[in-house]
Parts: sequence; structure tokens; C-alpha cells
Amino acid sequence: MTAVSNNKPLALTLGEPAGIGPDIALAAWLGRATSQIPAFYLLGDPAFLQARAAALGLDVPVAEVRPDQAAAAFADALPVVATGHAVTALPGRPDGSSAAAAIGSIRQAVADVIAGRAAAVVTNPIAKSVLYQAGFKHPGHTEFLAELARGEGAAPQPVMMLWSPTLAVVPVTIHLPLRDAIAQLTTELIVSTARIVASALRRHMAIAQPRLAISGLNPHAGEDGGLGSEDQAIIAPAIEMLRRDGIDARGPLPADTMFHEAARQTYDCALCMYHDQALIPVKTLAFDNAVNVTLGLPFVRTSPDHGTAFDIAGSGRANPSSLIEALRLAARMSTPTQPS
Amino acid sequence: MTAVSNNKPLALTLGEPAGIGPDIALAAWLGRATSQIPAFYLLGDPAFLQARAAALGLDVPVAEVRPDQAAAAFADALPVVATGHAVTALPGRPDGSSAAAAIGSIRQAVADVIAGRAAAVVTNPIAKSVLYQAGFKHPGHTEFLAELARGEGAAPQPVMMLWSPTLAVVPVTIHLPLRDAIAQLTTELIVSTARIVASALRRHMAIAQPRLAISGLNPHAGEDGGLGSEDQAIIAPAIEMLRRDGIDARGPLPADTMFHEAARQTYDCALCMYHDQALIPVKTLAFDNAVNVTLGLPFVRTSPDHGTAFDIAGSGRANPSSLIEALRLAARMSTPTQPS
Repeated sequence: MTAVSNNKPLALTLGEPAGIGPDIALAAWLGRATSQIPAFYLLGDPAFLQARAAALGLDVPVAEVRPDQAAAAFADALPVVATGHAVTALPGRPDGSSAAAAIGSIRQAVADVIAGRAAAVVTNPIAKSVLYQAGFKHPGHTEFLAELARGEGAAPQPVMMLWSPTLAVVPVTIHLPLRDAIAQLTTELIVSTARIVASALRRHMAIAQPRLAISGLNPHAGEDGGLGSEDQAIIAPAIEMLRRDGIDARGPLPADTMFHEAARQTYDCALCMYHDQALIPVKTLAFDNAVNVTLGLPFVRTSPDHGTAFDIAGSGRANPSSLIEALRLAARMSTPTQPS
Repeated sequence: MTAVSNNKPLALTLGEPAGIGPDIALAAWLGRATSQIPAFYLLGDPAFLQARAAALGLDVPVAEVRPDQAAAAFADALPVVATGHAVTALPGRPDGSSAAAAIGSIRQAVADVIAGRAAAVVTNPIAKSVLYQAGFKHPGHTEFLAELARGEGAAPQPVMMLWSPTLAVVPVTIHLPLRDAIAQLTTELIVSTARIVASALRRHMAIAQPRLAISGLNPHAGEDGGLGSEDQAIIAPAIEMLRRDGIDARGPLPADTMFHEAARQTYDCALCMYHDQALIPVKTLAFDNAVNVTLGLPFVRTSPDHGTAFDIAGSGRANPSSLIEALRLAARMSTPTQPS
């Protein structure tokens, strides 16, 4: 029995079928007892998954189920909810079946979590270039999820958190050239991001008063203006606004001294101004078990922090650690708890 | 006896006398046996150091010596070479005696190492604002050393390395606003910096063929141009030039995946494009024992990687770890060795 087997299962997407997603899903299910993995079901093609298990020499029975049968089936078989997209892609070789299967799996997972059939969504890695060739119009996985999650109004603002047992970070700007990240950094963006983070930590991580450490942009957080103006002109006012809102935000802090062990004890999440400022420390400390979490959606979504790894798909060499952490964190975040 | 007691001693500067420099010098001398600290002498005011030892309750005899007497004296007393600048500053309170004493100590240390009286220079932290008030004209410590080291021609190009037992990094641009660091990054600067690093690793660290990992500027090293142009336009050509020179340089590498444990095994030094990209990983991994090394000077210079810490000067709470590592590294780098 797993920790949350009496609760709703997690919906795990197929991801790019020619990548390592199927491999690590099979490996995670095999480790379900020792790693205390919560019940999940995979949204995909049951026959394809059974074939991949056989090709990998893994003894994984596949049970085709409905979502409401998944938790009960999980102990004895990998529960798979069929999406109706047959997969023909071989390991490392995406084909015409890849995009429809990957997209169909994501759509169904979001539908399930919104309808209350799943507790949260965990997504396997997709190959954006494969999806683009098939006409996919969204900048990425997260934007697609935000679009699927929109109700009548505007799509929600998704916020990326990299979470690991030792450090959680949020980049305020993400996939932009560094020059553009500086140009697009605004007080408003920092404030809206921090509010989403604080709210998510309260609601999903049971932290009653989340402590946010907010980095400066420039070396030494600008050294009182001697090394750049953005720290004082853009970041400090954001922190003042957050503090007026009752959010425990500190900064702008020199980024180079924010991440050592003693410093990490003083906050629950670090907000950083650009991609590498956030991702360098978390990948330096927790390369194999960092989890990508999307905050700001109307449901919990986690993802392993790696790509499709076409070069090792089907080889048995893929490391399921990050997916396992993603499943465990999704269950933890979607379990109702009392704030501490 | 210490490891290099038969060699020339190291010249340790006083630094700002109101800061923690005197405290950590005294503490390092007390730990000389257990930490295997090489013989050094402090350039300063013997009476001031004896008084600081008494105020700290440390049993440190001070021996006023000439440089050539320092190694023999080191076992039984802290050797101090008098610079002729009497110090009246109290802990945490720099006064009119601070700047002359700090500057005089640096001048004498450089003169000693150039004349062959010292093996290398180790510098205690200075307070730039105190020096500026006294008319100091140089942007910082390192630039002053470069100026003192110049012969007839131009001052040498100093290169800053942060060295720790687990990771060595070099920022190609240093104390600039991030926006300006991007604007000032050139192929030529990367190449000249990398050449100095490779030469220093061969000459001072006994690494016959140094392996340099060179970061990209943008997220994912620009993702083939989709996330910025500098990685391909500026950094890649530098790496090609270095490789044509026979230097083992690799990159541009995504900065976020350069610093985890397995990645660090593949290179001897990481060259990064800006301050935080270099200093975040090394201070995350080695906050207390990173050493600041200046390459590109005609002598070895190391320094503890922290400031004057006026708030704890004279309290006995200053941590001498970084100075101890700086002394040990200076001795290692100035000991002639055969390349491996």
C-alpha cells in the first residue's frame, strides 16, 4: 500500500513516446513500494506500453483501466487509461504517431484533473520540435497547459518552480535571451510572480507564512547603485509592495551568497531574476532529483526536470529519480493539509 | 614544522586594520600545526598586532623580523615585518591610520615578492571606501597590485579565479552591471582570459593540459540561436581560437548543467561570462573555504574570499578558514613542480 492509495490517483502523461518517458514510467511503477510512490495512471496506448516493457525486459503487467479504477489496480499492475491514439514510434525515433499521442495525453490529463478524476497532473517530457512539425502552436508545454486550463477569461499566469529537497527556486523571467530578460524585468512581474508563489506555498505546501528570498539582478545586488540601477529601481519597490501585502519577502539579495547551506535555512523559496541565476544553484545541488513544478494553474502540475533523452530511450539506462520525485511531490502538494 | 618551511615565506598583508584581517591572521598562526599552514609573515605594525592578540585573549607571541628571518621564527611566534606605519584604529572603527597602513603593507609585500624575499603575496581584505577617502585612485585591490607589478610597459591583465577544493571558476567580466557585462563581452576578452588561465594552471597547478569548460551567456547556451546570439557570435569563435592554439577548451556549455558533481569531474576550471554565473556555484558549494586567486600577475597572489567584516572585528568570531585556504593555496602555487 502506498501513502495516498485511498486518495485520487495522479494522472501521468505519456510525453513523447519515442523518448524516455515510457521507460521511466515503467521503472517508477516497479519501484512503487521502495520509493513510496503514490498511485498514478498513465494516459496512453496500453499495447505500446506493454511492448516497451517487454523490449526493456521489465516484468510490468499493464492494466487498461478507467481513472476511477486506477488506485485499486496500482498495486498489481501499471494502470493505463487509453487515449485512443495508437503509437508506432520506436525508441529514439519519433514518427507520425508521436505528436497526436503526446498531445492527446496532455488534453485528457487536464480534463481528468479538472473533472476531479485525478488529484494532479504529472507530465513526461515532450519534444517541442516534433510537436511543431505537427502544427502545435504553443510556445511550450506549460503554455499549453495554461491554455487548456483557462475558463471563460484569460489564461492563468503559470509560474515555474524548480523544487528539490534542499532548495526551491523560481525564475521570474525564463526562456529569454539574457539581454531581453533584463529589459523585460518589471516590478509588476516580480510582484505577480511572488504572489503566486506565496499563495501556492500556503495552499499546497502547508507553509502558513512562506519566506521568500528575492535576488538582485546585478553583482552584489547592485552595491547601492554602483553596479547597476535595476536592483533599486525595479526589485526593491516590488519587495516593498509584497511586504505591505503581508508577504515575508526579503531582498534584493546578492545572488552569489543566497544559496549556501546556512543561507538556505532562512527561506522557503528563492525568487531569481533570470533562468541561470535560479537554475545554476538548484542543478548544482540536486541535479538528479529536482522537480519542475508549475504554479498558478488551477491544479497541481509537476514534471521531471529533464528532456526526452532520445539517445538512451529504450536502453534501460534512463534514471527515473526525477520522475519519482515529481510523483511524490505532486501527491504531497495535492493532499489537503493544515498550514503549519 | 610546516610543509614548506624550508622555502621562502609568504608575505601576508595587514589589510584594513579595523577589520577582521588581524584577527584571522592571529587565528591562522595559532592553527599552523593542525592546518599545516606554510610559514608566512605579516607586514604591519608589531605593537598593534600584539595589542590585538591581547584584546582577543590569544596567546600569540609577535616577533619583529626581516623577511629572511620569518621562516625560522614562524614555529615559535607570529613573524611581523614592520612597515613603519603605526596603527591606532580600533576594531570596527577605521581611522586616519588605516589607509596608510593598509597601502604600505601592500606596497611592501609586492616589493618583497618581486625582489625574491617572499614566495607569494596573500592579501587580507581592505575597505575600499576608507582608501578612497585617503586619496586612493585605483578601482580596487587587484588593479593596485597590477599597477605595482608593472615594469616598463603596460600593467598586466589580472584575472580573478575563485578556487575551492571542489570547483574553480573564472568570471570573464567581473564587477559590472549585468547589462554592461553583456555589452562588453568580446571574443578577444574570452580568449585572453582563457590563455592566462591555461598558462597559470600549467605553471602553478602542475596541470600539463588544463581542461577549460566555457559557459554560454544565455539560457541553454542560446539553444542554437533561439535564445540569444552571443553564444554563437562571440563565445563559440573564442573557443575555436583557443582550440587552434592547442588549449583544451569546451563550450559554450549551458551554465545550469555545468556544476553538478559529475560535470565538475570533466574540467579543471570553468570560465563564466559574468560575476554571478561564476560565483553562484562556487559559493553554493564552498562558502567558507573559497579562495580568491589573481592570475596574470608576475607573482602568485591569493586572498580570502570575504570582506573586512567590521561588525565582528575584535570579537573572536571571525572564521579564518578562507585565509587558511588562501595561505595553503599560495604555497602550493608558488612551489615549483613538474607538470603531471
